[in-house]
Amino acid sequence: MSDTTMTKQILLTRQSSAYWRVTFNHPPLNIFGPETIPQLNEIITALETDEHVKVVVFDSAVEGFFLTHYDFLAKLEDTTRLPPGPTGLQPLPDMLVRLSRAPVASIASIRAGIVPGGGPMARLPRLMGRGRALEMLLGADDIPGDLAERYGYVNRSFPDSDLDAFVESLATRIASFDKQAIRETKRFVDVASLPPDFEIAPEWDVCFASIMRPAAQERIKKLMEQGFHGAGDVEDRLGYYVGQLGR
Amino acid sequence: MSDTTMTKQILLTRQSSAYWRVTFNHPPLNIFGPETIPQLNEIITALETDEHVKVVVFDSAVEGFFLTHYDFLAKLEDTTRLPPGPTGLQPLPDMLVRLSRAPVASIASIRAGIVPGGGPMARLPRLMGRGRALEMLLGADDIPGDLAERYGYVNRSFPDSDLDAFVESLATRIASFDKQAIRETKRFVDVASLPPDFEIAPEWDVCFASIMRPAAQERIKKLMEQGFHGAGDVEDRLGYYVGQLGR
Amino acid sequence: MSDTTMTKQILLTRQSSAYWRVTFNHPPLNIFGPETIPQLNEIITALETDEHVKVVVFDSAVEGFFLTHYDFLAKLEDTTRLPPGPTGLQPLPDMLVRLSRAPVASIASIRAGIVPGGGPMARLPRLMGRGRALEMLLGADDIPGDLAERYGYVNRSFPDSDLDAFVESLATRIASFDKQAIRETKRFVDVASLPPDFEIAPEWDVCFASIMRPAAQERIKKLMEQGFHGAGDVEDRLGYYVGQLGR
Repeated sequence: MSDTTMTKQILLTRQSSAYWRVTFNHPPLNIFGPETIPQLNEIITALETDEHVKVVVFDSAVEGFFLTHYDFLAKLEDTTRLPPGPTGLQPLPDMLVRLSRAPVASIASIRAGIVPGGGPMARLPRLMGRGRALEMLLGADDIPGDLAERYGYVNRSFPDSDLDAFVESLATRIASFDKQAIRETKRFVDVASLPPDFEIAPEWDVCFASIMRPAAQERIKKLMEQGFHGAGDVEDRLGYYVGQLGR
Repeated sequence: MSDTTMTKQILLTRQSSAYWRVTFNHPPLNIFGPETIPQLNEIITALETDEHVKVVVFDSAVEGFFLTHYDFLAKLEDTTRLPPGPTGLQPLPDMLVRLSRAPVASIASIRAGIVPGGGPMARLPRLMGRGRALEMLLGADDIPGDLAERYGYVNRSFPDSDLDAFVESLATRIASFDKQAIRETKRFVDVASLPPDFEIAPEWDVCFASIMRPAAQERIKKLMEQGFHGAGDVEDRLGYYVGQLGR
Repeated sequence: MSDTTMTKQILLTRQSSAYWRVTFNHPPLNIFGPETIPQLNEIITALETDEHVKVVVFDSAVEGFFLTHYDFLAKLEDTTRLPPGPTGLQPLPDMLVRLSRAPVASIASIRAGIVPGGGPMARLPRLMGRGRALEMLLGADDIPGDLAERYGYVNRSFPDSDLDAFVESLATRIASFDKQAIRETKRFVDVASLPPDFEIAPEWDVCFASIMRPAAQERIKKLMEQGFHGAGDVEDRLGYYVGQLGR
């Protein structure tokens, strides 16, 4: 990993050889775009191949946001012209699938809600059951932490002051265990719980096709006029504003 | 949809072209029998084919009951002689499967417990996990709303005074979104979470065979003598009475 | 079932012909070893073949422990030389799979945490979702009852004083129902929720291979020196001590 460019949006910190931190740092909103992809790819590749890393914590340096959404201001071709990754999937779902299969435990330490993306129709029903997954996906609203815990979307929800201590304790605990045991355990869990890649690929295609439809373009335009992609109330309460567009 | 017959047990109300309500109205118990099937089939077919409907809320006009159970007073032949539906399954499981696949969000607004039926052995373990599904199915007891939420049987449980506002808000929200996006999202969730039809068919056959066994007929007879199928304590606390039959 | 030997570690009590209790009684820790296997096998076989039993409750006569872990003091060959069971799996996962498929409801009445074993990588993600399963398996910590309930690891967690009454009520309720209906219902739930045996077999092989690796042997030796396999703080707070070994 180089520590060079000014445009670095993702920071890698090695707490130890076994315990890494990956910090999204792209103020003001942690928007994820085509230029973020190679940066994340570099990190995913390191997690796949490093012989010592056992656990990685993903967090954010931007108050109020973890990862918010894809960059709708970027030229769509900048995304679609990227070649597929090693799984044969497009780069973003490719990296999410590879992270799922990487021989390390990954923990997301989230202080703000995220919008589903990159395979949620395949993953969420297996995580929280069909009915709740449909509510999340079709309701498309912001999700407070305690509801996310009740639905099983996140493992646990904490008062803000308790989050860091829990994550630190779990990460250092896992980092003290045997890497081979972690890799093997996770591989069996993957067999039992990861959706097949062939469910992910068409989700992605349909997602992109839907973004290009006039109905979606019109709504995105309306959101842009209201302040989408800039710091402010629209991004802070995106669920609310998305629910107002069609009324 | 015609609005004609006196024996109409299911009411369809269009809040708007995108948001429909289906209300079970068959006092005193909302018992579901062979004559209810074509009425429900008409509604399911409309949900499958209408070009504008995006969300449907199922509720009940009968205080204390949503759908209680099948009509054990009806002649069994009136049910078994009905031809299978388009899925190849018998009419009731056929309609439940088709509703699951229909290109609309469906929300059940329940003020009273329901008894599992029409594929629960295939569906419940995928919804709440094996252990809790076995407790629900083998315990065969009434299920209070807060336990149903804890087990993931229902998405959420509310104080009675908050239920309508939540359902209305979620339904109008979904109705404001793009129908094609709803259809496509739901189709992917179906792939990930719907049990295959070949698991449903034998459940139904075994269910009917079990109803015809002398042991079950004797218990149903005993329940009938106690007041089953009529308004009163047996139907209000069916779980309790079912648990007393074999002692 | 004979009631003979002095070394009996598992007690079978018939509350009635339909309702059995199986009590682990191997003080001070309920460690499970190669000599326990034929005793449990005898009970599993009885549960599979008895024509009257409908529900079985597993509990413990040893305060503070349900089943703690496998016997690491036993010669490994005493375990590995045992022939596979009827499923083709090794005896312990074989018996766990057969219990899952036995035509009786089984309830575990637990007053102390258990350590995952015998197929957890296949079972837990299907029970509690991928993320929570990974936390349980990779965190490898003791699990308090209320967290186990929130994660869906156990059906319900109770104040100690309420546990017995709930279990008794559920068990006698199920015992009052029809055995054939219980068997058939459970068989369908098995189809929907049991992981395939071919996922269990390699888990077991990898588990044993991992125990024999020098890294694991060294940690087990260190734990032994601290008091592992004896009554005391190491066994009482095994999760804590396991987390200290690699620091």
